[in-house]
Amino acid sequence: MTRNNIIGVPTITDIEEAYERINGQVKRTPVLSSESINRILGAQIFFKCENFQKVGAFKFRGASNAVLSLSEQEASKGVATHSSGNHAAALALAAALRGIPAHVVMPNNSPLIKRRAVEGYGARITYCNPTQQDREETLAKVQMRTGSAFVHPYDNTRVICGQGTAAMELLQEVNNLNTVIVPIGGGGLMSGTTIYVKGASSAIKVFGAEPRNADDAFRSLRDNTLHPSVNPATIADGLLTSLSPLTFKIVAGLSNGILTVSENDIVDAMRMIWERMKIIVEPSAAVPLAAVMANPDKFKDQRIGIILTGGNVDLDKLPFGKSLATL
Amino acid sequence: MTRNNIIGVPTITDIEEAYERINGQVKRTPVLSSESINRILGAQIFFKCENFQKVGAFKFRGASNAVLSLSEQEASKGVATHSSGNHAAALALAAALRGIPAHVVMPNNSPLIKRRAVEGYGARITYCNPTQQDREETLAKVQMRTGSAFVHPYDNTRVICGQGTAAMELLQEVNNLNTVIVPIGGGGLMSGTTIYVKGASSAIKVFGAEPRNADDAFRSLRDNTLHPSVNPATIADGLLTSLSPLTFKIVAGLSNGILTVSENDIVDAMRMIWERMKIIVEPSAAVPLAAVMANPDKFKDQRIGIILTGGNVDLDKLPFGKSLATL
Repeated sequence: MTRNNIIGVPTITDIEEAYERINGQVKRTPVLSSESINRILGAQIFFKCENFQKVGAFKFRGASNAVLSLSEQEASKGVATHSSGNHAAALALAAALRGIPAHVVMPNNSPLIKRRAVEGYGARITYCNPTQQDREETLAKVQMRTGSAFVHPYDNTRVICGQGTAAMELLQEVNNLNTVIVPIGGGGLMSGTTIYVKGASSAIKVFGAEPRNADDAFRSLRDNTLHPSVNPATIADGLLTSLSPLTFKIVAGLSNGILTVSENDIVDAMRMIWERMKIIVEPSAAVPLAAVMANPDKFKDQRIGIILTGGNVDLDKLPFGKSLATL
Repeated sequence: MTRNNIIGVPTITDIEEAYERINGQVKRTPVLSSESINRILGAQIFFKCENFQKVGAFKFRGASNAVLSLSEQEASKGVATHSSGNHAAALALAAALRGIPAHVVMPNNSPLIKRRAVEGYGARITYCNPTQQDREETLAKVQMRTGSAFVHPYDNTRVICGQGTAAMELLQEVNNLNTVIVPIGGGGLMSGTTIYVKGASSAIKVFGAEPRNADDAFRSLRDNTLHPSVNPATIADGLLTSLSPLTFKIVAGLSNGILTVSENDIVDAMRMIWERMKIIVEPSAAVPLAAVMANPDKFKDQRIGIILTGGNVDLDKLPFGKSLATL
């Protein structure tokens, strides 16, 4: 085992400790393979099924680690975040399981289905205008009023370490992987995965996979400068966010780089997983498989681990049998 | 253990022998549960996931048992059937794995997606007009020309015994079931399931679940007379067929009866499985859960086994977010 030595960055030991902390609360998800997908792609792919995780996404790992790491005194005042997606639901459930309040700041144009999911886990929602400024100001007010601890969706070492436990379970179950690929949005999962995998074996390559229409991570690594995500327009709605300085440092310093894919590639990969494996994944989760499909020579005959990040889709708005332009 | 004593009907021993025969070829599918479904319905439900079976349906069990039961001489001439659904694909794959020809008679108006599935497993398709008479005459001609053995989709003891192995695996894995529910169309799965479950423990109830719009089994058991299915119109397209004299005898003689459900119940149950379990099942597979949802008092606090029969849906034609009238 090697240790990364970037100052302020968690190590594999921190992820192992996170695993001990959340182990009883987080579901150990299965690793599935499909003979027909392997035959079509000429590679051995091992899918870590976080779509079966509680709240339907890997985000429950990071949120659980953040909530369970709080002292009794910190915890008593609750936790807060701004998010309209899987992180908000994950934090709400993790807080409910510890018996503490969760405060979620959400844009007032969030889809009803997402509000209901967060409310269903018992969180208190405060609505804001859908601008970054109002979101941050509203969150600051909520924290001031409640004294709650802010749990950022990815710019948080506890969250990063929790996300890294998915790769830890994958490597416990599958030997001799050549490559691990995960979707990259804000970089929390990618950071935790890279730290764990490189800490366990520097021979395993780790790639992030990203929609070409939201390629801030690709551009940031290429230019060695943190670029924000500008007007991203992708079906992979979990990958709209920008890297933070912390996740940029980890991903640029330790990973093997970023692969980008088209919107059509994403829908084709999602359809392949649905049809061949009979499991439901959200578009963001299909991005790593899309990267394998788009780079057949690069990955031929390899043993590849992919984290299927989530399964939360609105069944009334599926991308099949429609033109992408109408989505 | 008890033995049924209806003349000409297979016994639990025949199913155990079928299991030994097909064990190396058929996938042992997982049994999954959902905490949220159990909480909503106030019962413990154990789903045997034959949607993950090879060809995406339990039909591969019966087809495998039929093909592997043939003598070398019989097998050399191949197998034949008329079907446009999962049985045709299952027989095609089972024949391909034994290295023998499969002949499938299919109506010339079958959807392209079904033709491709059967062709993809290497079967030779003969098209007929979409009438029962032309189907049977065309099959007779194919058999005459090739000498192939007819494997009926359900009116066949080898097929029935193969289908019964799904319940056998379910009971191996889950103790103390109160009830087992399976969809009923032609009655092959229901017959094999009833024989196995009642043979293993007469205390376990076995119900068939059927769309109200295709309720020939319900009417047949009620009147103790075999009624054909007349103009069935249901989204559960695997359940359009009528019982045969053999399956009627088994189901009427040994099971605890038939539960019928509405089309809306079927779509609601299918949605619940997709959303809560993140797995893909076809409408027919959701019919038993629909029966539990429609009869909450009957099944309260019970341990219920359900066979999820298949996962083959056309993703371009899903029932969500649409009026049922447009399907």
